[in-house]
Amino acid sequence: MNDKIYRADLSTLKAWIEDVPENLNSLGGRGLTSAVVASEVEPLCHPLGKNNKLVFAPGLLSGTTAANTGRLSAGGKSPLTKGIKESNSGGTSAQLFARAGIKALIIEGLPENKNEYYGIRIRKDSIEIEKTHLWGKGNFETIEALSKGNEKCGVISIGVAGEMKMAAANISVKDPQGKIRSLGRGGLGAVMGSKHIKYVVVEPSENDQVHVEDPVKFKEAAKKFAKALMAHPVSGEGLPTYGTNILTNVLHEAGGLPTRNFSSGNFEGHDKISGETMHDLIEERGGKVKHGCHAGCVIQCSQVYNDKDGNYLTSGFEYETIWATGANCGISDLDSLAYADNLMDDIGIDTIETGAAVAVAMEAGVLEFGDSKGFVKIVEQDIKNGTPLGRIIGAGAEVTGKVFGVTRVPVVKGQALPAYDPRAVKGIGITYATSPMGADHTAGYSVTSNILSVGGFIDPLKKEGQIELSRNLQIATASLDTAGLCIFTAFAILDNAEAMEAIVDMLNAKSGSSITGDDVMSLGASVLKMEREFNKRAGFNEKDDRLPEFFSLEKCPPHNVIWDFTDEEIDSFWNF
Amino acid sequence: MNDKIYRADLSTLKAWIEDVPENLNSLGGRGLTSAVVASEVEPLCHPLGKNNKLVFAPGLLSGTTAANTGRLSAGGKSPLTKGIKESNSGGTSAQLFARAGIKALIIEGLPENKNEYYGIRIRKDSIEIEKTHLWGKGNFETIEALSKGNEKCGVISIGVAGEMKMAAANISVKDPQGKIRSLGRGGLGAVMGSKHIKYVVVEPSENDQVHVEDPVKFKEAAKKFAKALMAHPVSGEGLPTYGTNILTNVLHEAGGLPTRNFSSGNFEGHDKISGETMHDLIEERGGKVKHGCHAGCVIQCSQVYNDKDGNYLTSGFEYETIWATGANCGISDLDSLAYADNLMDDIGIDTIETGAAVAVAMEAGVLEFGDSKGFVKIVEQDIKNGTPLGRIIGAGAEVTGKVFGVTRVPVVKGQALPAYDPRAVKGIGITYATSPMGADHTAGYSVTSNILSVGGFIDPLKKEGQIELSRNLQIATASLDTAGLCIFTAFAILDNAEAMEAIVDMLNAKSGSSITGDDVMSLGASVLKMEREFNKRAGFNEKDDRLPEFFSLEKCPPHNVIWDFTDEEIDSFWNF
Repeated sequence: MNDKIYRADLSTLKAWIEDVPENLNSLGGRGLTSAVVASEVEPLCHPLGKNNKLVFAPGLLSGTTAANTGRLSAGGKSPLTKGIKESNSGGTSAQLFARAGIKALIIEGLPENKNEYYGIRIRKDSIEIEKTHLWGKGNFETIEALSKGNEKCGVISIGVAGEMKMAAANISVKDPQGKIRSLGRGGLGAVMGSKHIKYVVVEPSENDQVHVEDPVKFKEAAKKFAKALMAHPVSGEGLPTYGTNILTNVLHEAGGLPTRNFSSGNFEGHDKISGETMHDLIEERGGKVKHGCHAGCVIQCSQVYNDKDGNYLTSGFEYETIWATGANCGISDLDSLAYADNLMDDIGIDTIETGAAVAVAMEAGVLEFGDSKGFVKIVEQDIKNGTPLGRIIGAGAEVTGKVFGVTRVPVVKGQALPAYDPRAVKGIGITYATSPMGADHTAGYSVTSNILSVGGFIDPLKKEGQIELSRNLQIATASLDTAGLCIFTAFAILDNAEAMEAIVDMLNAKSGSSITGDDVMSLGASVLKMEREFNKRAGFNEKDDRLPEFFSLEKCPPHNVIWDFTDEEIDSFWNF
Repeated sequence: MNDKIYRADLSTLKAWIEDVPENLNSLGGRGLTSAVVASEVEPLCHPLGKNNKLVFAPGLLSGTTAANTGRLSAGGKSPLTKGIKESNSGGTSAQLFARAGIKALIIEGLPENKNEYYGIRIRKDSIEIEKTHLWGKGNFETIEALSKGNEKCGVISIGVAGEMKMAAANISVKDPQGKIRSLGRGGLGAVMGSKHIKYVVVEPSENDQVHVEDPVKFKEAAKKFAKALMAHPVSGEGLPTYGTNILTNVLHEAGGLPTRNFSSGNFEGHDKISGETMHDLIEERGGKVKHGCHAGCVIQCSQVYNDKDGNYLTSGFEYETIWATGANCGISDLDSLAYADNLMDDIGIDTIETGAAVAVAMEAGVLEFGDSKGFVKIVEQDIKNGTPLGRIIGAGAEVTGKVFGVTRVPVVKGQALPAYDPRAVKGIGITYATSPMGADHTAGYSVTSNILSVGGFIDPLKKEGQIELSRNLQIATASLDTAGLCIFTAFAILDNAEAMEAIVDMLNAKSGSSITGDDVMSLGASVLKMEREFNKRAGFNEKDDRLPEFFSLEKCPPHNVIWDFTDEEIDSFWNF
């Protein structure tokens, strides 16, 4: 049976299932969401208006037995960047979508009744829009309520930040433990909120499974792939032991850990919030050091972090969160950050954008750098209740900067820079500048070669080789995001040719195709260009591919480096 | 003696006087500020950072005896639009600048000391940066303090909105009565605040006067010009009697009075806030029906508005203010609006942008449409004290919309649309869309032919002729703004060829040149293109010349018209 597109139109409150058009057949994940957005969304529409659409799609390999393929992509026009957006995450929904034969879910229109709120319920071969009383509830309560008596269902939901249409609102996905994974960036939660959709529930049917053309060949390739992941020191050892937060000390050492709103690349409190400290605390307090965000993950970079009394505080406590709310705000109190992380999950707001926005507010003197209580108060009282201050922060770092008259506002295309200073890790700076997504480390994670010496070493402080590095990674990432692969599979791919071969073999075995590694890269390149073309039609041009002025004016200690790429150098990124 | 450029550098705290470069010699007012910005300001700089500059210049005819030539232009990169900005106003400073031989004042750099604040004091042939204790004071107190014992001095100042670097902060100029005129739009007050400049004082010297090459010819032309102004029904009768607020009823009748955040072109409370009602109230309460914003004004569109007990409430109470804070917020309580107007003058914030932002907040449910007490509270408590809500509103309508998740946000290039619905007054819509200044009625006041039948009649509800109309007016306005002429001289110019001849004669008599009317128009066209070129370098393209989506989606009652220009039609504006 062929996969189908499920579509819900909130303007008419009708939902239906339709065939997949020929041109979308070979796409999944990000490639698919971006293709739908590019063809169906008017580029100059208001992101929260009736002409925007929200698209969910599992990756091409999602739902199979292959390791680390359980990523769900969401796409739309971003309320944060005003450009095209794709954001992806683990959790259980990608696999449930794929196994139920859902190629994509497209949510469109706006409800006429301003006081009614809805959920979307998907069962095998059916989709319904239903009224809900869960509007106003946190993500955890929402997931719990929907899972009652229906434990295996997948849930995609928004918290109150999405309901309030905050531009930093994310979309949450239930993970195997009933906790949350986040489609974090770009404010797609606000798009879901604008359509009055609180949740999407997917109820699995027995015997749902993804059709694989050549199961024997697939199994063999999947085995080779898993082996490659586990053999790599980063995905097989570093990430499972310390999680992504292994990077706090690494970036501090490299002088690229943005501290106090990108004023330095060193944070004196790094050790208190490091992955090593966190690992020991988790063990001491009876948490879980490793834990996967979806079934079939062999990397297990997540964890369960308890408080000092051994009670659950948070999980999925990532480096970028700890950086944004920690070093970038001058805060070194890990328990406060964990508490805030769980709150932000419940409220449904991007931790990176929130931390960056608070740091900008700190720069403006709204609160002091290092004020962990002040930070928690902003999340718990202001954002959650939608006070004017909470709305400002919830609108992201750029708006916060404009509201408070701050000149040092680290954003590209309206989206906050994540946890790597572009002056000291220049490859990631090129990714920030050029990605059609706005500043986003996951779009082309040059930290690999710049810092981790994966896929070779390219000096992070020099310009040489960075553009090519970022280009290759952005193209490869667009392919991985289309396949539904976790970005951390890239470590093995970059260092071991067998990993890439295995992916190509899996794709071919699944669909009966005979594509090559080059075809996979061409696919990534075409996705990237399609996204850029949408942005052009939405009014972007090469001037949007620039870092804020202050990175060129201010030296970043300790290396005292500035951002020194010329416009021509940056623009050469697109020569492919 | 030749005019000079006065320059103050806040980074070094040095100020000096320099010769006017050859290429700037024939420019004044807007032409001059835009030329300096275009040549000296890095287009991608942060508007509040050290690389932006603030330029003041009197018009080419300012300081002469010619009627209505006392306009002062300010220019810089706008914190509101991120593009080039010129804003002009009456008051006494333009004439004092011109008579003291100040071609332009350029303020640049940023002070290193974050806790010191400054004023600039200009005497004949001298300029000094001085420390001030007036930071934190309102505009009225500032003007009063600086004028003490120095009544004839000119004062240019910012209120607390500018100090807080609000993107809607304006710059105030002392008028002949010691009250305030505002360089209202585009947030140049925030640029002045970012440089820690509270005020510029110009102390006149005896015998200062503008050099006129041929005084006899000048006098003759000036007489002809004044006669033309007074002979025209709008500038000679309508404006002196009812002020600009004569337009409230006119626009209501035309169905183009934007009401409740551009939801209708009719306001049921129009009569209560109309110019006719205001005229009667002023007379009843012993105010002044007519009053000029600068010496030499023969139109006298301003007034003094008292409260019911006969005490001064406000002056310079314009149609656009009354519309923005009245009809657009659903408020019909004229006394409250007058009270708020005076407060906004003291705080130094643009009344159009503030009214538009509050209306967007009303649409979001922050307060109710029609809540005049709520409006006054926002101005008096929130904006003045810089509460988070005050900062949001002070950042303008676009930010307010983003913060509260509103889709109906009437802005172009980040600046709020003024008092004429572009769907029902289509010529002004073309001006809003295309002006390099962002939405601005004064940039090309198509209301003339669309509504007032001045310069012929072009049906406001039809597309025919609007692009040419707006183009001709925008070019002519750039010339008038360069000459230092009040925009209301345009009524006479459009209907009476003698007015334009008189202007050309005055320009020639003043400088000994022999330009023609065509040369004056070419000058305007070149200024407009220079401004657009700056914006292009700042990242703008044709997609920025678009009205928000909702004007094309929603019909405007009572004519039920939409905004229906195609992209191609709008872009044809620039074919000159």
